[in-house]
Amino acid sequence: MPLGSDYESQTCAVASTLEVVGERWTLLILRETFFGVRRFEEMQADLGIARNVLVTRLNKLVDEGVLERHRYQERPERFEYRLTDKGIDLWPVLVSMMTWGDAHGGFDAGPPVVLEHRGCGGHVDAHRICGSCGERLGARDVRARPGPGADPEHPLTKRYEQRLAAR
Amino acid sequence: MPLGSDYESQTCAVASTLEVVGERWTLLILRETFFGVRRFEEMQADLGIARNVLVTRLNKLVDEGVLERHRYQERPERFEYRLTDKGIDLWPVLVSMMTWGDAHGGFDAGPPVVLEHRGCGGHVDAHRICGSCGERLGARDVRARPGPGADPEHPLTKRYEQRLAAR
Repeated sequence: MPLGSDYESQTCAVASTLEVVGERWTLLILRETFFGVRRFEEMQADLGIARNVLVTRLNKLVDEGVLERHRYQERPERFEYRLTDKGIDLWPVLVSMMTWGDAHGGFDAGPPVVLEHRGCGGHVDAHRICGSCGERLGARDVRARPGPGADPEHPLTKRYEQRLAAR
Repeated sequence: MPLGSDYESQTCAVASTLEVVGERWTLLILRETFFGVRRFEEMQADLGIARNVLVTRLNKLVDEGVLERHRYQERPERFEYRLTDKGIDLWPVLVSMMTWGDAHGGFDAGPPVVLEHRGCGGHVDAHRICGSCGERLGARDVRARPGPGADPEHPLTKRYEQRLAAR
């Protein structure tokens, strides 16, 4: 185990993952990045998280090689955060949590978000396989859309509508 | 979202899952139950967690319907904790975290734990599909074994050896 923590005595791959992403808010910050939200201000607005907590979580994810920081503006200096390949490998963790939440989270109107295969529009199943063409899918093969249970105020819904409007 | 929490404003299946399993230690407690460890004393010994924290986490998992409490001894009264179907549905979350940890957790000697299909002995891939027979696998179809990177002191290694010795 690379990091000192309470989980250190566990030679366990689950514990090693939780050392990187197990802190409060971290997986929701990564959800944002998978939705294409890269800027501090947008993440902070979507999550309603304290700024100092967001700073701490982002810095840790950069230190761990899960996100990369890129400067997109010089005066004043502004940065955005992009998933590395190591970060993109966390996509199955988010999909598995989303699948469980869809089933057990009390979303009576249906899932807030649905995933579809960019290639053929098929539904992405719980094994991350396309229900139409049978392809095994990775994060880059899949598009998130607001589902029947989407809240109009959900960050994804808003982002998605912004992108449609910008076309 | 059913529960009051800081994530409450998020209509998000990931957030709803984190409300149930996102607290420190909870996913490692569930790891124990998937390994067949059901008793408080054994979990406490494996995890090295404070007893009051383990009590709090187990009570929450029972309240959420993820675990069921069963009395196995009357004097003194002792209980064990078993996964419900809702709890078993969390298996993909643990598998996805284990897969990421295997790849990025610095286990130079190889994965601490390997999963094999009970039916045919095949390797379970990252999509939870058997590499030999192609079957889509659930928690009950799969056996965990110590892998090349297993620590002799790892709880699973010890449990597995105990079970082999008991045959």
